[in-house]
Amino acid sequence: MSEQDQRHMKRALALARKGVGKTSPNPAVGCVVVKDGRVVGEGWHQKAGLPHAEVNALSMAGSEARGADVFVTLEPCSHTGRTPPCAKALIAAGVRRVVAGMVDPNPQVAGRGFALLRKAGIIVEHGVMEAECRAINRPFIKHVTTGLPYVTYKCAMTLDGNIATVTGESQWISCLDSRRYTHRLRAAHDAIMVGVDTIIADNPQLTVRHVKGRNPLRIILDTRLRTPESVGVLSESMAHGTIIATTESNPRVHLRYTQQGATVIVCDEYDGRVSMVDLLQKLGKRGIQSILLEGGSRLAGEMLQNNVIDEFIFFLAPKIIGSDGFAPFTLRGITSMDQAIKLKFGQIAHSGQDIIVHAWPAEAVCSPA
Amino acid sequence: MSEQDQRHMKRALALARKGVGKTSPNPAVGCVVVKDGRVVGEGWHQKAGLPHAEVNALSMAGSEARGADVFVTLEPCSHTGRTPPCAKALIAAGVRRVVAGMVDPNPQVAGRGFALLRKAGIIVEHGVMEAECRAINRPFIKHVTTGLPYVTYKCAMTLDGNIATVTGESQWISCLDSRRYTHRLRAAHDAIMVGVDTIIADNPQLTVRHVKGRNPLRIILDTRLRTPESVGVLSESMAHGTIIATTESNPRVHLRYTQQGATVIVCDEYDGRVSMVDLLQKLGKRGIQSILLEGGSRLAGEMLQNNVIDEFIFFLAPKIIGSDGFAPFTLRGITSMDQAIKLKFGQIAHSGQDIIVHAWPAEAVCSPA
Repeated sequence: MSEQDQRHMKRALALARKGVGKTSPNPAVGCVVVKDGRVVGEGWHQKAGLPHAEVNALSMAGSEARGADVFVTLEPCSHTGRTPPCAKALIAAGVRRVVAGMVDPNPQVAGRGFALLRKAGIIVEHGVMEAECRAINRPFIKHVTTGLPYVTYKCAMTLDGNIATVTGESQWISCLDSRRYTHRLRAAHDAIMVGVDTIIADNPQLTVRHVKGRNPLRIILDTRLRTPESVGVLSESMAHGTIIATTESNPRVHLRYTQQGATVIVCDEYDGRVSMVDLLQKLGKRGIQSILLEGGSRLAGEMLQNNVIDEFIFFLAPKIIGSDGFAPFTLRGITSMDQAIKLKFGQIAHSGQDIIVHAWPAEAVCSPA
Repeated sequence: MSEQDQRHMKRALALARKGVGKTSPNPAVGCVVVKDGRVVGEGWHQKAGLPHAEVNALSMAGSEARGADVFVTLEPCSHTGRTPPCAKALIAAGVRRVVAGMVDPNPQVAGRGFALLRKAGIIVEHGVMEAECRAINRPFIKHVTTGLPYVTYKCAMTLDGNIATVTGESQWISCLDSRRYTHRLRAAHDAIMVGVDTIIADNPQLTVRHVKGRNPLRIILDTRLRTPESVGVLSESMAHGTIIATTESNPRVHLRYTQQGATVIVCDEYDGRVSMVDLLQKLGKRGIQSILLEGGSRLAGEMLQNNVIDEFIFFLAPKIIGSDGFAPFTLRGITSMDQAIKLKFGQIAHSGQDIIVHAWPAEAVCSPA
């Protein structure tokens, strides 16, 4: 990979990042068209249904695209979805070379875009800055390869590891800057998930308020259907975007939620609770690529033990509550350090008065860039 | 303050930092001698008993010191201690101007060094980069102004706020890089303090092993004299540097420790335990300026509630132990977020696999620079 190629791919990545969190179910993609060393076109995918990155970049390049080099973070598509295949658009534009960050991980596509291009005599290279290109589309990659949503656990806790006081009070542990960051996270996810105990204790709205952005779906894990009908997430304007996951299969019992507009998903039972694996499979089938898990302790502990958390974002507040508060994960019986669940740290940063700590499972499938 | 002055004071600070943690009971001080805009002398205080920063810098400058400007992080001393007063050395060298970072906080000195210099016709300025100059000598400043040692709580915990598993196992929570950092901290403190429960549970050596440096004193808080005579800190080579703080006043009971060479300090009782205030006053009187508090939970919680911790250094390990481990502070009864004990974060950094988080009481007497 030449230094020039890397520079152009970096720019394509920067363009792609503008779309991150807004393109679901599509991946975020960026594209740069370069003619005689000069950038003549740039584009990124903004939203599902709108043109793909390559089409936007070719459109900007116009007739300059002929004989040009194209840098794109992901393999150009070969199939007609809501928009025509990009590989064909690149061929029609007469480009000379296509440099891609990574192969499309969709097993039904993988490599076919490249094959189309090569067949038309276009030079194809790929794997340029692949780790970075993968990093911006972790949820898309996980979903398309496993059928399961990518789960990020977000948790605000005191420096001494409490997410609530002994009486359950948790408002507000984190500062306004951190709560704004959380709302940006919400807007970038397909769904938020919480346990029914959190709904009962806090009656949270689970909406995007502190920043601009669309509200994600809301998923309540509620094995025994204890969610009160009066809570905010079942109000007239909210219920249609709320999913309740239960093991209760009697549709007559569901009525009190479905009549309000909510969706009830019946899952297999495992160990007396909703089976995590079954639930995530069902959510994945509904096209939910990314889930922001917001607690509480019991659900987070269960998902951690089931090894289904892909990423961790902790907001640490500069506060001490003591030894009788609520832990971020309800989890018992680890007696030796060897048995500790191992993570690895990513980025750390200040966020107002708080600190943000990113972490990943030590053996991550989609590891950080 | 001119840009030149600031640049020279920055250099003096950098020199002073070479002595931090090595000069007790003296402060760390740096000094730069500048003639016609050119640095002709540099010095720092390396160790109590050795020459002060000014004397080292003047010695390097030699005859060039005449008519020179001197930048020193702390007011030059006016009294004869183990070495002659620096103010007199500066006068004898014929310097033109002295720029100091801060006034000597010792109430018996404050301003007298400046007065001597002024009386000799030397131009005196002070307060240049004062916050930074104060920051490098927090223990010295606290001790000389209040008589109390500066207490730093150092704690290694898992990301979910545990300092040990439910069975008390804590070896090792943090990685080797962090343990090396801890040993550097130990070498830079006059004393380490732990509770007797930590001695009983872990039988720690509390020595400097992973890095070069002198062993600090070891203080065991042991209200009822439960320390077993067989522990490492009471071994033949260690006992002479070990202090046991108790409320037990019977000297015959002390014999089993004093005969081994350890020191027993009898303190006032408060709430059935050693009075923290009384103990710190007694340690301060013994010339102990800085204490590294290493736990356990109960002692740390008590010191936190007594508001005697000046600084916090947390090593966060990328591990999850769950909800039945030991908290960093034993502290109960905080029911609302308003009652949380407020800190403020300082520097954060990666340390091997871990993260180091510095924090301070929200209302710190000696606030961070």
